Amino acid sequence: MSFSIPERSTLKGPNFIRAVFERGAGIPGFISFGIGNPAPEAIPVKAIQDAFDKLVHENPMLLLQYGPMQGDAHLAEQTLHRLVNTHHMNPDGQSLLISVGAGQLLGLVPRTVCEPGDEVYMDAYTFTSGINAVRNTGAIAKGIAMDEFGMIPEALDEAVKSGKGKYVYLIPNFQNPTGITMPLERRKAIYEVASKHDLFIYEDDPYGEIRFAGDYVPTFKSFDTENRVLYAGSYSKTLSAGLRVGFMFGPKEVVDVIQVLKNNCDGQMPLVTQRVVSTVLDNVSYDEQIEEVRRVYKMKWDAMYETFQQYASSKVHITVPTGGMFAWMTMPEDVDCDAFFEACMEHKVGIVPSGAFAADGIPNGRAFRLSYTVPTVETIKEGMKILGELTVQFCGK
Amino acid sequence: MSFSIPERSTLKGPNFIRAVFERGAGIPGFISFGIGNPAPEAIPVKAIQDAFDKLVHENPMLLLQYGPMQGDAHLAEQTLHRLVNTHHMNPDGQSLLISVGAGQLLGLVPRTVCEPGDEVYMDAYTFTSGINAVRNTGAIAKGIAMDEFGMIPEALDEAVKSGKGKYVYLIPNFQNPTGITMPLERRKAIYEVASKHDLFIYEDDPYGEIRFAGDYVPTFKSFDTENRVLYAGSYSKTLSAGLRVGFMFGPKEVVDVIQVLKNNCDGQMPLVTQRVVSTVLDNVSYDEQIEEVRRVYKMKWDAMYETFQQYASSKVHITVPTGGMFAWMTMPEDVDCDAFFEACMEHKVGIVPSGAFAADGIPNGRAFRLSYTVPTVETIKEGMKILGELTVQFCGK
Repeated sequence: MSFSIPERSTLKGPNFIRAVFERGAGIPGFISFGIGNPAPEAIPVKAIQDAFDKLVHENPMLLLQYGPMQGDAHLAEQTLHRLVNTHHMNPDGQSLLISVGAGQLLGLVPRTVCEPGDEVYMDAYTFTSGINAVRNTGAIAKGIAMDEFGMIPEALDEAVKSGKGKYVYLIPNFQNPTGITMPLERRKAIYEVASKHDLFIYEDDPYGEIRFAGDYVPTFKSFDTENRVLYAGSYSKTLSAGLRVGFMFGPKEVVDVIQVLKNNCDGQMPLVTQRVVSTVLDNVSYDEQIEEVRRVYKMKWDAMYETFQQYASSKVHITVPTGGMFAWMTMPEDVDCDAFFEACMEHKVGIVPSGAFAADGIPNGRAFRLSYTVPTVETIKEGMKILGELTVQFCGK
Repeated sequence: MSFSIPERSTLKGPNFIRAVFERGAGIPGFISFGIGNPAPEAIPVKAIQDAFDKLVHENPMLLLQYGPMQGDAHLAEQTLHRLVNTHHMNPDGQSLLISVGAGQLLGLVPRTVCEPGDEVYMDAYTFTSGINAVRNTGAIAKGIAMDEFGMIPEALDEAVKSGKGKYVYLIPNFQNPTGITMPLERRKAIYEVASKHDLFIYEDDPYGEIRFAGDYVPTFKSFDTENRVLYAGSYSKTLSAGLRVGFMFGPKEVVDVIQVLKNNCDGQMPLVTQRVVSTVLDNVSYDEQIEEVRRVYKMKWDAMYETFQQYASSKVHITVPTGGMFAWMTMPEDVDCDAFFEACMEHKVGIVPSGAFAADGIPNGRAFRLSYTVPTVETIKEGMKILGELTVQFCGK
């Protein structure tokens, strides 16, 4: 038979991240700044093993039977407690939902709220699945111009004039892929535009806890006086990505609808993974664990940045992240970026071209994402020396 | 702000299963035939604990980092091997996808292939999430009349004349909620109607391995000469529901699209749960494990049926499942089913009214789902005596 599949279901951008991974896989000495995996040495392996041992042997039936659709109640309490007490979010009229990583939310939000043709505004360059998941609902993932502080409020205001706007998707802290953190004044300006046009804001904050420099910037959710922010977080970057535990916190009237749709359409989540996270949170100091993640990430970013400054062309710009996992390297206008990318691959250094992150209406661009979390400090220095020397070859001193 | 949420996202039937569960929870001596959980004593706890111990301690990093989007490759191999060798499915031109339980597929399939207004045909009474997940995409979950052999081909043929048909959703083995198994001739007749109108068939088979009486009936997928069957299975009923591991096997051109959409929109699955299933399959005889599940289920169904025959009104009909977890009890026409249900609840016996399973266009009906898997044999006998005596009170001897 011939299957007719709606076009929206097949829409996606180029998968450069995987392409880089696959080209590098199996090549001896290949140095990857491509994959956005957390640093393995910052995963609290022992605490996680202890949690598994306890749960699997103490009361295995709690893990092996169907459980509550909403997920683990204790984990929800622990999560809410941190959002309210550490991040100063107001719980009144809000609901919390546990998800299979923050990744599950990228699809759940647009497919709950969007109609085909609706516009979702996002940074010109943003997280690939954040773009594709919107496209797959039949909505439009519209890229909005950015500057060094992130999304430009005036550009958002202009785009919203189409009258098709549904919400704004943002990663305000240590953005993927640019590493940019939006300052508070900019957040307030964006919030004002959202307020003016009655859009809601999907604040995706998987990296928020991993600040290793500069001052804490309040989340949108913490000053959400008009109840228009859906806040998403994750334990993937602070504890373990493989466990797939994330959460969403926001207005009850929306989050409860998302929860029911999730129950109907996605089924239950595994129990053991949620309870391992919950048990680890009970047994270790989460603040100390996060400090350790920050320490490792800072050390690795410092190694990347120092080597970049030492070897790279002065004509190449790199963002200076104050947390998270990514930096964004922009090439001068006259350089052939495809050739530069190929030269890096030939010299066994993997970076991700900006086209991987380009929302609708945005060209490929002249930039590359560099992730510094997985390689060791030594390997980072080695790779950045190669990369830096290549920038000089292509752009001059 | 006021959130405008599309109506389709909020569509769902009454949640009678949960209502029965909640009314019974905490009542001492309450006997539930309501919840469709697997029998706890048939879960291979020791083998699962051993798998966790091995995986968590041997190479924890394999579980704790992001992994392959497609899921665990070894589990995919093991699953494919069984489908091909035990269930005689032809792998040519097919793909296999691992999912977070078969439950995740209930949403993934319609949201990949359906446009709003498309019709999905299903048994008049079928699995609640199978109905709701279609409604939530904006497609129509259209109930098709059934007889003792399941969906009636002529009724399907008639419904398809709307010209809006997309696919047929079926649970051919030990159907939820009726316990009916569709005989081979009926499967062929349904396949013929699907062929005539170029519909595909979504064959949902989570209970298929748990046959405890009668002869094996070949799956639709095993005689799918026209490449129009998407087959879904699960390890929830044979190993553990809490681990949430299911799979889909079908035409590459559809399953690969579903896989990519899943990657974009749902993110990765937990690794540990997939690898525990895979390790258990490596270390125990799956056939012997399934034999044990069948033995337990048969013993419990026999207890239910014998007690029913001993005490129930001759005017009440019950299906006789040859596997799976459910039987379907139909009341005579003149009985007040709401009053009967309330009487059961008052006498501390939980059953689920048919309205919980009614697809679009189907009335509540005069039937109840009975699940026999969780209570002990003693409790089943006790509950069925109460239930039987109540049927006599309401319907006469």
